[in-house]
Amino acid sequence: MRRAIELAARGLGHTSPNPAVGCVVLDASGQLVGEGWHQRAGGPHAEVHALEAAGGRARGGTALVTLEPCNHTGRTGPCAQALIDAGIARVVYAVPDPNPTATGGAVTLRAAGVDVEGGLLADEAAAGNEAWLTSVLRRRPFVLWKYAATLDGRIAAADGTSRWITSPQSRADVHRLRALADAVIVGSGTARADDPQLGARLPDTEVTQPLRVVVDSSATAVKPGARILDGTAPTLIAVAEDADATHLEGLAPIVRLPRAADGPGLDVPALLGALYERGVRSVLLEGGPTLAGAFVAARVVDKVVGYLAPTLLGAGPAALGDAGITTIARALRLDVTDTERLGPDLRITATPALHEEN
Amino acid sequence: MRRAIELAARGLGHTSPNPAVGCVVLDASGQLVGEGWHQRAGGPHAEVHALEAAGGRARGGTALVTLEPCNHTGRTGPCAQALIDAGIARVVYAVPDPNPTATGGAVTLRAAGVDVEGGLLADEAAAGNEAWLTSVLRRRPFVLWKYAATLDGRIAAADGTSRWITSPQSRADVHRLRALADAVIVGSGTARADDPQLGARLPDTEVTQPLRVVVDSSATAVKPGARILDGTAPTLIAVAEDADATHLEGLAPIVRLPRAADGPGLDVPALLGALYERGVRSVLLEGGPTLAGAFVAARVVDKVVGYLAPTLLGAGPAALGDAGITTIARALRLDVTDTERLGPDLRITATPALHEEN
Repeated sequence: MRRAIELAARGLGHTSPNPAVGCVVLDASGQLVGEGWHQRAGGPHAEVHALEAAGGRARGGTALVTLEPCNHTGRTGPCAQALIDAGIARVVYAVPDPNPTATGGAVTLRAAGVDVEGGLLADEAAAGNEAWLTSVLRRRPFVLWKYAATLDGRIAAADGTSRWITSPQSRADVHRLRALADAVIVGSGTARADDPQLGARLPDTEVTQPLRVVVDSSATAVKPGARILDGTAPTLIAVAEDADATHLEGLAPIVRLPRAADGPGLDVPALLGALYERGVRSVLLEGGPTLAGAFVAARVVDKVVGYLAPTLLGAGPAALGDAGITTIARALRLDVTDTERLGPDLRITATPALHEEN
Repeated sequence: MRRAIELAARGLGHTSPNPAVGCVVLDASGQLVGEGWHQRAGGPHAEVHALEAAGGRARGGTALVTLEPCNHTGRTGPCAQALIDAGIARVVYAVPDPNPTATGGAVTLRAAGVDVEGGLLADEAAAGNEAWLTSVLRRRPFVLWKYAATLDGRIAAADGTSRWITSPQSRADVHRLRALADAVIVGSGTARADDPQLGARLPDTEVTQPLRVVVDSSATAVKPGARILDGTAPTLIAVAEDADATHLEGLAPIVRLPRAADGPGLDVPALLGALYERGVRSVLLEGGPTLAGAFVAARVVDKVVGYLAPTLLGAGPAALGDAGITTIARALRLDVTDTERLGPDLRITATPALHEEN
């Protein structure tokens, strides 16, 4: 199963709206005879790849899959049936499929006389698929908020300069996060100040470029010639329903959304809903502080990755802007799940504490 | 020598203006026959304690000392002579004594025919004595700035509430830092907002209480009845030369200092000079952001310890106030020397990067 989890990880960033899944097939004697992973949405599922590799040796064998085999016919046929057809005698999966349209694979397999066991290395497999699982559960994309700040929490100096607060190692790691995400989101302040390109660049690795999303509520930040419009990856501009965005037509697809009821910008759940409809299952929220504040206020941040540079500024904008929190008892409490040194910097990963409503 | 370094650490927080020193005496056959450490200023030095324990067995033996034995007569006699008188044949020390009034011990020992070797575990011993060594080098106390903040760098919520951002484990660790320091410093903002007591409380450990220093430039923050005046430890109130502090007379000793040439508050080097004259060799700077900014601006922070709570606020005061840094190229760059989990929190220790002038 550990091997299947490794295989699954290869698909991360390429499979949405599907999950990343890995599968290993053993023959009747326990010999490994096939491996597969879900490589891209619309392509064969992990089980099909692995069964293909195993061929006739799958008969009477065992399939180990990171997710309960699907039971529905989408762009591809149901994997439960494929496993039955191949003569697999035993299926061991890690995580049950929470997707109401695809669940039921275990039942179908058992009905066909296949020995089925679930839950093996479930935590590990779920962690590898956290974005997709969260998106199924919450019916909105998984949101990872990333920030880069000094030890005293500044993302730029008083004069606005910020190149570079963090190290090349940290910046390379951000490209890894982008490559894993279906969409990268920035607000109008960042679009104006930094003119970011937002592409994912990884050495020696093929990347499915994430959708680049600019939240430009008043349609005043994105200008023709902006780097985000360079055509190297899809771009989406989110504007308020009442904004005049005629100058943006033809530059990039535009989505019109309601404004937030309280505070500046757009309604965050509506934005996430629009992205979900487009097949986005994970977003990397890259800033700036105002947009991050709106996401924290909406309590839709599922994970925080902070790159802390061992630097002090004493002035300049903070990483997180107004999130509607005025007193300490209302602070968003997290659990640190990982800390890692990246060159001179420190990367802190945290997730909302279990008692937090999110 | 490693044992001697351990012994030295027992004196930390009790020996200023003297260094913390440990000593181990071996007899002629290499058997450990005496241990000692400098326990408090005015008391016998480490070597004298160890020689006393060894008695006649020191003759022909070896003394291992964390610091070059002193050569001058202060409140106690010179240790170099004591080692010679005890018939020690060989002295091994870790760090040379940089103190111009005490140095020369190695020369005196060699002249008396003692075999002398320096530099054993020097880095380790120097790290254990960093505050005292820094104070000798810079002729001002070693400054450790401690802050406690959320992941987004806030030390309180928008309404001023801050109890408690960090965990009990982190707060206990602050007491450890206080116990190691000769003085604890806060500014008028912290005195007004928190009315701190600033005592060091450690379970099952005798603590030499640090001098409590309030920088109350305009003499408006400290009021009769303030917890800092509770008599459990000495207190010093630093006011501007031109401030009317008559209401403070009789409450605590007052030191009058020039105002800072640029910015609010007192002249930081003058403050540190006044503390140095009083025998203070290490200070724990506890805040708030304005005072910390003045210290960073003066480039006198030797070490930073940040307690980061995995919490987000999005509003509220930042850990570090104006430090005269307006652009990223002028940021104070540090090196992270340690990271440690303290309950849910993260403690980050950093020191100014080597290329920084400090």
